[in-house]
Amino acid sequence: MTSETETIVLALGGNAILQPGQKGTAAEQRQNIAETAEAIVELIKMGHRVIVTHGNGPQVGNILLQNEAGADQVPAMPLDVCGAESQGQLGYMVGQALRNELRANGLPTSVAAVVTQTVVAAGDPAFASPTKPVGPFYPVDRGTTLGAERGWVMKEVRPGQVRRLVPSPDPVRIVERDEIRTLIAGGTIVIASGGGGIPVVEHPDGTLRGVEAVIDKDLAGQRLAADVGASVFIILTDIDRVTLAYGTPEQVPLERMTLSEARDYLEQGHFPPGSMGPKVLAVIRFLEAGGKRAVIAAMKDAARALAGNAGTTVTT
Amino acid sequence: MTSETETIVLALGGNAILQPGQKGTAAEQRQNIAETAEAIVELIKMGHRVIVTHGNGPQVGNILLQNEAGADQVPAMPLDVCGAESQGQLGYMVGQALRNELRANGLPTSVAAVVTQTVVAAGDPAFASPTKPVGPFYPVDRGTTLGAERGWVMKEVRPGQVRRLVPSPDPVRIVERDEIRTLIAGGTIVIASGGGGIPVVEHPDGTLRGVEAVIDKDLAGQRLAADVGASVFIILTDIDRVTLAYGTPEQVPLERMTLSEARDYLEQGHFPPGSMGPKVLAVIRFLEAGGKRAVIAAMKDAARALAGNAGTTVTT
Repeated sequence: MTSETETIVLALGGNAILQPGQKGTAAEQRQNIAETAEAIVELIKMGHRVIVTHGNGPQVGNILLQNEAGADQVPAMPLDVCGAESQGQLGYMVGQALRNELRANGLPTSVAAVVTQTVVAAGDPAFASPTKPVGPFYPVDRGTTLGAERGWVMKEVRPGQVRRLVPSPDPVRIVERDEIRTLIAGGTIVIASGGGGIPVVEHPDGTLRGVEAVIDKDLAGQRLAADVGASVFIILTDIDRVTLAYGTPEQVPLERMTLSEARDYLEQGHFPPGSMGPKVLAVIRFLEAGGKRAVIAAMKDAARALAGNAGTTVTT
Repeated sequence: MTSETETIVLALGGNAILQPGQKGTAAEQRQNIAETAEAIVELIKMGHRVIVTHGNGPQVGNILLQNEAGADQVPAMPLDVCGAESQGQLGYMVGQALRNELRANGLPTSVAAVVTQTVVAAGDPAFASPTKPVGPFYPVDRGTTLGAERGWVMKEVRPGQVRRLVPSPDPVRIVERDEIRTLIAGGTIVIASGGGGIPVVEHPDGTLRGVEAVIDKDLAGQRLAADVGASVFIILTDIDRVTLAYGTPEQVPLERMTLSEARDYLEQGHFPPGSMGPKVLAVIRFLEAGGKRAVIAAMKDAARALAGNAGTTVTT
């Protein structure tokens, strides 16, 4: 499409780090991340500035489970701290793989993962109705008791098994945005806002405090993109294109859509809340905030998608 | 001593984050870290640029224990990844506390925790003789079997209980040094090299790979100080001053020592290898590498120690 240098926020889907059916060993993650790094470096080779964000669902899930399993020996950490741990884990693994791939390509190897907090509004309606399941599955009895003890909202998510639900509030501001901008300006590939960022609320006196919640990583990626002034926002996922009437005989994969079409399709209920919905919403917000172009595409198609030859491109 | 702006690397001891006897709950850590942040902001108020590094012993110990406790459900992560998780945890908690304390003092609130790798030499002799105990205590039988299965070196550290030993190689280079410098130049308080940094070796082709080892956090702090060109290196710990013949009736607390005295005392065996030894060695290396002044002091005395009114000041 264009050969000019663009600042791109790239949101990696879960399968960029862990494939369905894998258990989540370090070796599996390293292998997947090495392939992901190749795809990212394709974009960097074209001269673009890239900021990487990523999900943390399976990783923070495992950390929560480990916290629970060890709880009779060491104090379990709250969800915000576990999220921070997952940022350390993935920031390290993705950062190392990117540095290695950049070096293998003879490119400058400046990469940094920044521990990122994301401000959410204390009054966000999400706090009144937690919807996002996190952590281990418990048998109903045990889970109900535990939930009562800890003040957790529990829900039967499989017959006989309950899980904790936490709120999923809207991201308002990336706390470390200025520091991320400084690094980008210096030519660093930044990894930030992993898992949507560690959710914090800002008290009236300006004090930040962590909250037990989960922020959608694509919506946080949009905040990050807006906060750093990115012109392109790429959401990589496990499907080739955004598809209308997905899973029906009438399904229509879309090569392009306009902002107003995206709004209409979202309103018409084409995109499920837990999957494509937030991605399309993130894209809409990105364009509304002045972004030039957004793409939703499969991981493997990252470079072609940027050129408009794969995935779904959305423009005003 | 001086009112000019200095670039200071501040290495926090374990008790800056967790006090002896505490279990390590998030609430305990937050409380300690809030007090630590007050002490750090005292230095920032004086106009100095501060880079913070910290230990991670109790935190990575707990993460290893949680990994072990959950190992029948989710794959345990190797030590380098667990170290990265501890950097996320503490980078978040220390970063948030510093931001809050800066704001409370009406100061600019630019803080960032950078996930940090530290290069060690593949040929470091430490790899031939692991000395650093990490992770859970096991009964001899179980630990010996586990060690054999995983290729771990185990040692009986208490009667009837064994623990894994890992190498403690020398830090060679902070991988993210340029990015940390960029942030410092932009006025950001950087938290880096937590737990000595994630140990990585550099293969002949330049590829970085994590290794299961632990780098001394004060020696890594010195590398960081040299790599970012800090003029002052402050090591905060749980004793008031460096002391000769420590614990004997003849003990002599030192207000100052010269580089050559420090070398002599270290050679004469005044400082135990596991505690004051590496701190004094780190100070020696710092001054040898061109640093102006190093201080070893108690946490509570940070600001007074910088002024030469507490702790032990070491100069060439």
